[in-house]
Amino acid sequence: MFEHGSIGPVAARRLAFDTPIALAAGVSLPRWELAYETYGELNAARSNAVLVCHALSGHHHVAGWYADDPRNIGWWDNLIGPGRPLDTNRFFVVGVNNLGGCHGSTGPSSPNPATGQPWGADFPVVTVSDWVAAQARLADALGIDQWAAVIGGSLGGMQALQWTIDLPERVRHALVIAAAPKLTAENIAFNDVARQAILTDPDFHGGHFYRHGTRPTRGLRLARMLGHITYLSDDQMAEKFGRKRRADAGRFGYGVEFEIESYLRYQGDKFAGHFDANTYLLMTKALDYFDPAEPCGGDLAAALAGARAKYFVASFTTDWRFSPARSREIVHALVKNKHDVSYAEIVSPHGHDAFLMDDRHYHALVAGYLRNVKT
Amino acid sequence: MFEHGSIGPVAARRLAFDTPIALAAGVSLPRWELAYETYGELNAARSNAVLVCHALSGHHHVAGWYADDPRNIGWWDNLIGPGRPLDTNRFFVVGVNNLGGCHGSTGPSSPNPATGQPWGADFPVVTVSDWVAAQARLADALGIDQWAAVIGGSLGGMQALQWTIDLPERVRHALVIAAAPKLTAENIAFNDVARQAILTDPDFHGGHFYRHGTRPTRGLRLARMLGHITYLSDDQMAEKFGRKRRADAGRFGYGVEFEIESYLRYQGDKFAGHFDANTYLLMTKALDYFDPAEPCGGDLAAALAGARAKYFVASFTTDWRFSPARSREIVHALVKNKHDVSYAEIVSPHGHDAFLMDDRHYHALVAGYLRNVKT
Repeated sequence: MFEHGSIGPVAARRLAFDTPIALAAGVSLPRWELAYETYGELNAARSNAVLVCHALSGHHHVAGWYADDPRNIGWWDNLIGPGRPLDTNRFFVVGVNNLGGCHGSTGPSSPNPATGQPWGADFPVVTVSDWVAAQARLADALGIDQWAAVIGGSLGGMQALQWTIDLPERVRHALVIAAAPKLTAENIAFNDVARQAILTDPDFHGGHFYRHGTRPTRGLRLARMLGHITYLSDDQMAEKFGRKRRADAGRFGYGVEFEIESYLRYQGDKFAGHFDANTYLLMTKALDYFDPAEPCGGDLAAALAGARAKYFVASFTTDWRFSPARSREIVHALVKNKHDVSYAEIVSPHGHDAFLMDDRHYHALVAGYLRNVKT
Repeated sequence: MFEHGSIGPVAARRLAFDTPIALAAGVSLPRWELAYETYGELNAARSNAVLVCHALSGHHHVAGWYADDPRNIGWWDNLIGPGRPLDTNRFFVVGVNNLGGCHGSTGPSSPNPATGQPWGADFPVVTVSDWVAAQARLADALGIDQWAAVIGGSLGGMQALQWTIDLPERVRHALVIAAAPKLTAENIAFNDVARQAILTDPDFHGGHFYRHGTRPTRGLRLARMLGHITYLSDDQMAEKFGRKRRADAGRFGYGVEFEIESYLRYQGDKFAGHFDANTYLLMTKALDYFDPAEPCGGDLAAALAGARAKYFVASFTTDWRFSPARSREIVHALVKNKHDVSYAEIVSPHGHDAFLMDDRHYHALVAGYLRNVKT
């Protein structure tokens, strides 16, 4: 039990909710489901639960592997497990696939009760606050009144932050990693190019590709290739790929030639083969809309005034998608409120992706913070 | 003649070459044409000629306007004209559309002599050195043995640099603006996503869309939208667009909502309406291949050892496509050779696009340098 290792084999679960959930888009889902996983044990006081929120392409399979598919390892397995920074010997960890997702939770490929057909692009655009509300229902069902912590990176970190604003009584600690208080015009621009790639793919069929037996893989592939450029740092790309050519590459043609091309196309193909294009669209829109300061006229400190959580905020030096300056905006707003906040600007070559990496310094900081979280 | 103004009405010309040109790709074009324009007058000594090289989407229409289309103003008109920094009262200025272009020079839409049909994607991928060789033929035809200067921004600046390596006797000054000595993996990555957008557009038809009566406008539009993200600075985008929404925008849908989306889609549509997709592909490939240091084992100083030109190198502080650090690499290699070089790192909010802007400080530096160029 005290080895530093993976949680081992885990099982995905699904919970159906029969109480409608009203979404920001003005749509109410009468019946909906969430896919989730749990690791570790909920203590008798129900005070050791930690929610892990996922980013754009993530899901509920956060740690461990499936007995029937041992190579399918959770996306944050390096952080979570017995003896790991988010220690399942101490914490009851919950991973959830967000509403609108494509890994088991109700989303665009689920049947629209009004038609019996898949929702497709008619699935409502969900917001980070919608996700918090849905996750709170899951917490209710699991008997968790208050999370010891909510943790996430990137869009996941935005959810952790939103939790402390929307349901301040229900979260003691928020770990907001590689996030931003809102997207810049440039961030939105990248998302929009990705969306346009999907929306203009002839196989998208206005989002109803399911019924046409097609998938907009061309658009999704481009979206993912573009995403990967923003996840890596310029320096890391230079070091990893530089101008290296593939040994089998032709010249003066449009096939794969440089190693970076090979990498991006591989990532694009892999992703386009399984991810739902409508989910990609709505996840990027949730990112664009995220702006907790907006109801307070842009004053983030005012938006956070009612928060009661303690915070761990971390950024990575080479992250140009959500740079350290963006995390510092969050920290400044917290400090202005005299909220308890630890901030780490972590030297890493890995760009935005660093939050997913097994970096000793980064993990030591998360472990150190969580060690002081009472259960 | 001494007012500071536009050169006024100009006329495009075209020159046919009947001597074959052998390209780096191993293909020889038996007969080829270049579209070009000239401004000012070649002096008796033929010593006042300046070549302006264009970037990715540029062409020979560099300054002035057409009598029958007065709104079609040259792309560098703010820099070139009587009394302007590149002063047509002193210099004989030549603009040229590069081989492979889509504005009148021989390119993918020209007939392939082997088939009588448009070349399409079979048009050879051209290199920066190929362009220098073709431009030299134009110089021969115009009776210009030696350029007083070769000037260009971005990919145009790369041509200016290559001139001094390939034909050192034929250029006295090179003005290399907002350029880089070679592309990084990240630069190539952006180009590859743009190319993949075009190549996977069902209307591309392997580059033979002309005969199908289609145009891969979806792909070209995405390529241009993506390009524009890299041309602007993050800060400028924030200032110009921020998170502003269009007044008529809906919410919770996938239509245009943020101003930045409107801008990018407009730019994409405009470009996709007229530019040739095959030209876009080969121009990005010329960028990817540009690496004058490669024949010298990566030693740029060695590559520049035989150059005889004097140099003006300029970069812009917010340019993240080809950052000042990239220009400094060129400067260092020149300094190592004890070549005469002026370097300016210009404070500008306009990102990579700054080289096209009417910035007083920038233009004063170009004007000041050119004033000392003997004619």
